[in-house]
Amino acid sequence: MKKVAIIMGSISDYEVMKEAEKVLKDFEIEYEIDVVSAHRTPYKMFQFAKEAEKRGIKIIIAGAGGAAHLPGMVASISNLPVIGVPIKSKSLDGLDSLLSIVQMPKGIPVATVAINGAYNAGILAVKMLSIFDQDLMRKLQCYKKELELEVDKMSKSIIKEDYYVKL
Amino acid sequence: MKKVAIIMGSISDYEVMKEAEKVLKDFEIEYEIDVVSAHRTPYKMFQFAKEAEKRGIKIIIAGAGGAAHLPGMVASISNLPVIGVPIKSKSLDGLDSLLSIVQMPKGIPVATVAINGAYNAGILAVKMLSIFDQDLMRKLQCYKKELELEVDKMSKSIIKEDYYVKL
Amino acid sequence: MKKVAIIMGSISDYEVMKEAEKVLKDFEIEYEIDVVSAHRTPYKMFQFAKEAEKRGIKIIIAGAGGAAHLPGMVASISNLPVIGVPIKSKSLDGLDSLLSIVQMPKGIPVATVAINGAYNAGILAVKMLSIFDQDLMRKLQCYKKELELEVDKMSKSIIKEDYYVKL
Amino acid sequence: MKKVAIIMGSISDYEVMKEAEKVLKDFEIEYEIDVVSAHRTPYKMFQFAKEAEKRGIKIIIAGAGGAAHLPGMVASISNLPVIGVPIKSKSLDGLDSLLSIVQMPKGIPVATVAINGAYNAGILAVKMLSIFDQDLMRKLQCYKKELELEVDKMSKSIIKEDYYVKL
Amino acid sequence: MKKVAIIMGSISDYEVMKEAEKVLKDFEIEYEIDVVSAHRTPYKMFQFAKEAEKRGIKIIIAGAGGAAHLPGMVASISNLPVIGVPIKSKSLDGLDSLLSIVQMPKGIPVATVAINGAYNAGILAVKMLSIFDQDLMRKLQCYKKELELEVDKMSKSIIKEDYYVKL
Amino acid sequence: MKKVAIIMGSISDYEVMKEAEKVLKDFEIEYEIDVVSAHRTPYKMFQFAKEAEKRGIKIIIAGAGGAAHLPGMVASISNLPVIGVPIKSKSLDGLDSLLSIVQMPKGIPVATVAINGAYNAGILAVKMLSIFDQDLMRKLQCYKKELELEVDKMSKSIIKEDYYVKL
Amino acid sequence: MKKVAIIMGSISDYEVMKEAEKVLKDFEIEYEIDVVSAHRTPYKMFQFAKEAEKRGIKIIIAGAGGAAHLPGMVASISNLPVIGVPIKSKSLDGLDSLLSIVQMPKGIPVATVAINGAYNAGILAVKMLSIFDQDLMRKLQCYKKELELEVDKMSKSIIKEDYYVKL
Amino acid sequence: MKKVAIIMGSISDYEVMKEAEKVLKDFEIEYEIDVVSAHRTPYKMFQFAKEAEKRGIKIIIAGAGGAAHLPGMVASISNLPVIGVPIKSKSLDGLDSLLSIVQMPKGIPVATVAINGAYNAGILAVKMLSIFDQDLMRKLQCYKKELELEVDKMSKSIIKEDYYVKL
Repeated sequence: MKKVAIIMGSISDYEVMKEAEKVLKDFEIEYEIDVVSAHRTPYKMFQFAKEAEKRGIKIIIAGAGGAAHLPGMVASISNLPVIGVPIKSKSLDGLDSLLSIVQMPKGIPVATVAINGAYNAGILAVKMLSIFDQDLMRKLQCYKKELELEVDKMSKSIIKEDYYVKL
Repeated sequence: MKKVAIIMGSISDYEVMKEAEKVLKDFEIEYEIDVVSAHRTPYKMFQFAKEAEKRGIKIIIAGAGGAAHLPGMVASISNLPVIGVPIKSKSLDGLDSLLSIVQMPKGIPVATVAINGAYNAGILAVKMLSIFDQDLMRKLQCYKKELELEVDKMSKSIIKEDYYVKL
Repeated sequence: MKKVAIIMGSISDYEVMKEAEKVLKDFEIEYEIDVVSAHRTPYKMFQFAKEAEKRGIKIIIAGAGGAAHLPGMVASISNLPVIGVPIKSKSLDGLDSLLSIVQMPKGIPVATVAINGAYNAGILAVKMLSIFDQDLMRKLQCYKKELELEVDKMSKSIIKEDYYVKL
Repeated sequence: MKKVAIIMGSISDYEVMKEAEKVLKDFEIEYEIDVVSAHRTPYKMFQFAKEAEKRGIKIIIAGAGGAAHLPGMVASISNLPVIGVPIKSKSLDGLDSLLSIVQMPKGIPVATVAINGAYNAGILAVKMLSIFDQDLMRKLQCYKKELELEVDKMSKSIIKEDYYVKL
Repeated sequence: MKKVAIIMGSISDYEVMKEAEKVLKDFEIEYEIDVVSAHRTPYKMFQFAKEAEKRGIKIIIAGAGGAAHLPGMVASISNLPVIGVPIKSKSLDGLDSLLSIVQMPKGIPVATVAINGAYNAGILAVKMLSIFDQDLMRKLQCYKKELELEVDKMSKSIIKEDYYVKL
Repeated sequence: MKKVAIIMGSISDYEVMKEAEKVLKDFEIEYEIDVVSAHRTPYKMFQFAKEAEKRGIKIIIAGAGGAAHLPGMVASISNLPVIGVPIKSKSLDGLDSLLSIVQMPKGIPVATVAINGAYNAGILAVKMLSIFDQDLMRKLQCYKKELELEVDKMSKSIIKEDYYVKL
Repeated sequence: MKKVAIIMGSISDYEVMKEAEKVLKDFEIEYEIDVVSAHRTPYKMFQFAKEAEKRGIKIIIAGAGGAAHLPGMVASISNLPVIGVPIKSKSLDGLDSLLSIVQMPKGIPVATVAINGAYNAGILAVKMLSIFDQDLMRKLQCYKKELELEVDKMSKSIIKEDYYVKL
Repeated sequence: MKKVAIIMGSISDYEVMKEAEKVLKDFEIEYEIDVVSAHRTPYKMFQFAKEAEKRGIKIIIAGAGGAAHLPGMVASISNLPVIGVPIKSKSLDGLDSLLSIVQMPKGIPVATVAINGAYNAGILAVKMLSIFDQDLMRKLQCYKKELELEVDKMSKSIIKEDYYVKL
C-alpha cells in the first residue's frame, strides 16, 4: 500500500520533485506521484486531498512555485501531515514560493522545507513514518552514518592537498 | 441583485475590507459580504466560488493575509474576475500576502491591489462594472473630480502658510 | 472596434507583452498595441490615456519595468480599468517593477498581475469583458477545461514513469 | 510517557511557544518543555538531542529567533522529526529566523512553520502522531469542524451588519 | 524670484517635507511649495512640470510614497533637475517608495535621497545652486563647520561620562 | 576646464561608468575620469575630494558597489554635489550598493540614481550644469526630442506587425 | 593603556553602543569612547583612524546606522581589526546598516556583528584580546559558564510550571 | 604550530574558501583546513570546536551556506574568535547565509565578513594575529601599500584612454 503521495503543480516541477521520489525509493517506501494543480485543476486537487487518507496515504509531499497554494490547500482539506516544497521561481528566487507555503494561518500547518528542498521533503517523510517503525528508524541511523562518511571523504580530499601545510 | 461579493479570510480582516464596502455603498452598487476562509472552510470557499456566477455576482473582491490563498483559489474555481487585497501581516509587513496573491501562475490571474488597498479594490470593481454602464462611468468622472478637489484644498492649506514666501 | 489597448514602455518589453496579445487573438478580441513611454513620451502617454475611452477602448493593459510608472499614470488619467504587468528588471528581479505598479495610492487602482505575467493580463482582460458577454464567458469555460486537460496530460506522462511503483 | 518535547532558545520565546503547549494539552498529548540554547548551552543541547529518542520522545518542537540554530542542530543530532518555529526577531521581522531554520542542507530537514507559528507546530505534531493513531485522527477531524464553526460565527456577525444590503 | 519648488503627493507628506523647506529658509533661498499629486491631479502635475522652468524655477524637490510616481513624472516632463524624496510607507517601510523613485529608466534621472530624507533634499538643492554662486558655497562651508561642531558637542557629552575610564 | 569628475572604486566598474562618460562627451562637457577607492586608497580619495572644487570641478559622479562608501565619503568632504551610481553587485543584485549610497544621514546627501544607472548620472550632471547655462538647456531639450523619436520608431515597428489587427 | 576604542556616528547610537562599553568594564579592559562621524567629521575620523594604533589601541569597535560608512572607512585607514555594529535604522529595520557594513570589498574586512549587537562587539573584542592573554581567556570561560547558568535558571522557571505535565 | 583553522560545511565551499587559504599562505601563517559539517557531522564539529584551542589554534575561519550554522555553533563551543564566511546560496543569493551567520544572540558573536568574502576572512585573521605581532603588522602595512598600487595601475590605464579629454 502506498504510504506517501508526491504531488506537484506542474510537470516542470518534476525536475526538482524527483529528488523526493529518489529518497522514498532508497528507503523502500511505496509512494504514488502525480501532477495536481491547485489553480488549473481545483476539483482534482479537492478530490485528491479528500480521498488521500481513505486510500491509505499517510503523508503528502506537495511542491509548488510562485503563488504556491497547493501544499496549503491540500493541508486545509486533508487531516494528513503535508510537507511543502517551495520551488525556485523565475523572478523572485523562490522567496514568493517560500512565503506562500510557510506563512500558513493558525490551525493549518504545512511542514515547509528549503527552496527546492525536495530531497529533504523525502527524508522528513521517512522521519515521520519512522516514529512508529523501528526498521525505518534503523535505516535512518545508517543514512546518518553515510552522511558522515561523505564528509569524511571530502575531508580526506581537502587534507591531501592542504592540511598541515608548513610554510 | 448583488453585483459584487466581498469576502475575507477572517473577521479580523474586516477592519481593512470595510473600505471596499464603503466604495460600493458610495457608488450605489449592491454587494454581499462574508467571511470565507480558504484554509478553515475549504468547502464553503469551493461552494462560494462555484456558485457566485450563477447567483449573478459579476466581480469578487477577496482579502487575505500571510499565505493568502483565498483570492487565487476563488479565481481558479470561478470564471469571474477576482480582485485580491493583500492584508498587512504581523511579521513580514504584508510582503508575504502580496507575493502569495500576485504571483499567480499562467492562466489564473488575480487583479491585485496595494497592501491593505481594499478601498482601491472597490474602485477597481466600479471601473470594471462601468465598462458597459454609462451611468457608473459618469459617477467615476465625478469621483475623479472630487479627488482633484481634495488636493486643491490641501494645496490651499499649505500655500496659506508657506507659498510665495519671500525671505 | 478595438476593445483592449496593449501598451508598453519600450519595444524591449514586447518579448514579454506579446503573451497578452496572444491571449486576445485566441479569444478573438480586437486590440491595438503600441509603445508608449511615461518617461520618454509623457505627452503621447497623456494623449493616449485621455482619448482611449473615446476611441472605444474598454480596458488598457500596460507593461513596464523598473520605476514602472506607465500603468499608474494611465490609470490616473483614464477612467478605464488598467491592468499592470511588472516587467522583470535587470537588477532587482522585478521587485522594483512590482512595487512601483501595485502600491498605488487611494483612489487610483491598477489591477496588477505577476512579474512578467502578460499572459494573465490578457486573461484578466477577457474576464472583465465577459462580465456582460455570455459568449466570451463560454469561451472562458472552455479555456478552463483546456487548462485541466493540460494537467491531465502531464499527469499521464508522470504516472507512466513512476506512479504506483511497487518497491 | 512524554511524546513531544518543546524546547526554545530563551525564556523570552515562551510567550510564543506556549501556544504549542496549549495545543498539546488540548489534544491530551504528554509533553515536556525546557529552555535549551544551541549557543549558550551547546552541551545540554547535544545531550538533549542525543537522548530524546531513548527517552521515548517522538517529535521535537524547537523555537528560536535571529540566527536560529536550535531546530537545525537538534535535527542534525537526533533521528526524530523536528518542527522549527521561527520566532519574530527585533530587527528583521523574523525573516532571519525563518531563513536560518528553513534553508537546511540536503539530508537534514526541519519541518518549518510560519513566523511565530508555535500553535501550528503543535497541530503539526498532532498530525504526525495521528498517522498511526485513529483516536487522535478523530480528534483532528473534530478540531477541523471547530475551525469551520469559528468562521461560521464570524460570518454571522458580519452578515448581520452588512450582508444582503439593498442600496 | 523663487528658485526651488517643493511639491508633494499629499498634505500628509508635509510632516516630512517641511524639513526641505527649513533648509531653504536657513540658506535664504526663495521657494514655492504646493501639493501636486501625480495620480489625483495629473493635469495640475503636467501643468506644473511644463511651466516650472518658465517661471524661473531652477530645481524641483518632489516627495512621494508607495508607488511614488511624482518625482519621475515631473522629471520626464521638465528639463530641470528633480530631487526625489521617498516617503516612508505604511506597509513596506519605504522600500516601495525608494525603488519607485530611484529605478528610473535611461534618459530620465531623479536625484534620489534617503527614505524620509527631505532635509537632505534641501541641502542637495543648495549644493546644486552653489555651483555658480560663491556666496552660497561659503554658506555651505559654514554649514559643514556646524555639523562638525554638533559632533564636537556630542563628543564632549559622551567623554564627560565615559572617556578615559581607568578600571 | 573640466567641469565634471567621474570616479569609480575599481577599474571593473568602468564597464558601467563609461556610460556617464558617453553622455558628457555627447553634451560636450569637459570631464576627468579616475579610479579612486574609498577603501584601498583612502588618502587619494581624501585628497581628491578636498581639491576637486579648487580645480574647478563643479560636479562629482561616483560609482561603487557592495558596501559602496565612495560617493558618501566624497560628499562628506567636498561641498560639491555628488551623484552616486550603485554598481550591481555579485551577490545581492545591487541592493547593498543602492542602500549604502542612498541612505545617507542628515546633512550629507548623495544624489542617487538607479542601479547601474551611470548614463542617468551623466544626464543628471548635465541638468545641474544647465541651471545657469542656456545653451546646455537647449541641448537638453533636443535630447528629450530624441528620446521621443526613439519611441516613435519603436512604435512604428510594433504597429507594422500588430496594430489595428482585425480578427 | 586603553586597548579598545568604541566610536559611533552619533550620540543617539550610544543607547545601543553602551552595551559594548558594559562588556569591556565587566572584563576590566581599558577603553576609550567617542563620537566620530564619517560624514560630519571626516577629518576627525581620518585622524582617529590614523593614530589609533600609535596610541596603543588594539581593536576598534565602530557603530553606525543607515549608509553606515564609519566601520569600513576606519578599517580602510587603520591596520587594526575593526568590529562593526549595524545600528537599527528608522526605515529599513537595519538591513541598510548591515549591508553597508558587512559587504566590504576585497582587502578591507570589517568584523560585523548582529544588528544592534553592540554587546557581542564587546565580547568579540575580548575574544580577540584573549588570543594572547591567558587571564582573559579564563575570564571568558567563566563568562560562558554564566551563560549556561542563566539558561539553567530559565529552565527551572519553565519546568516549575510546565515540565513533566501528566495530562 | 598551526594558528588558524579553516573549516567549511562542504567540499563545494572550497572554491570560495581557498581564498582564505591563499591569504594565510601569503602572510606565512600556518593553518589547517578541513571539511566539518555542523549538520552532517555534528560530533566531529563538536570535537573540533572543543579541541581547537588546546591544539594551539588561535582563530577559526568557518564558511557555510543556506541555514549556515557552522560558524555560530563553533563559536558557541570554543572560546576562540570565529570568523564567519557566508557562502552564496543557490536560491536566495546568500542573504540566508548572511543572516544565519551574523544575527547571533547576545554572548556568542561571529565576526562576519561579506558574502563569499573568504579572502577578507583571511585578512581579518591576520589583523587579529597582528595585534601582538609587530612583524605581521608590518606585513599588513606593506599589503595596504600594494592595494594602493593596484589602484594606481587601474588609474593609469583609465587615464591613458580618457583623462583630461578636451572635447
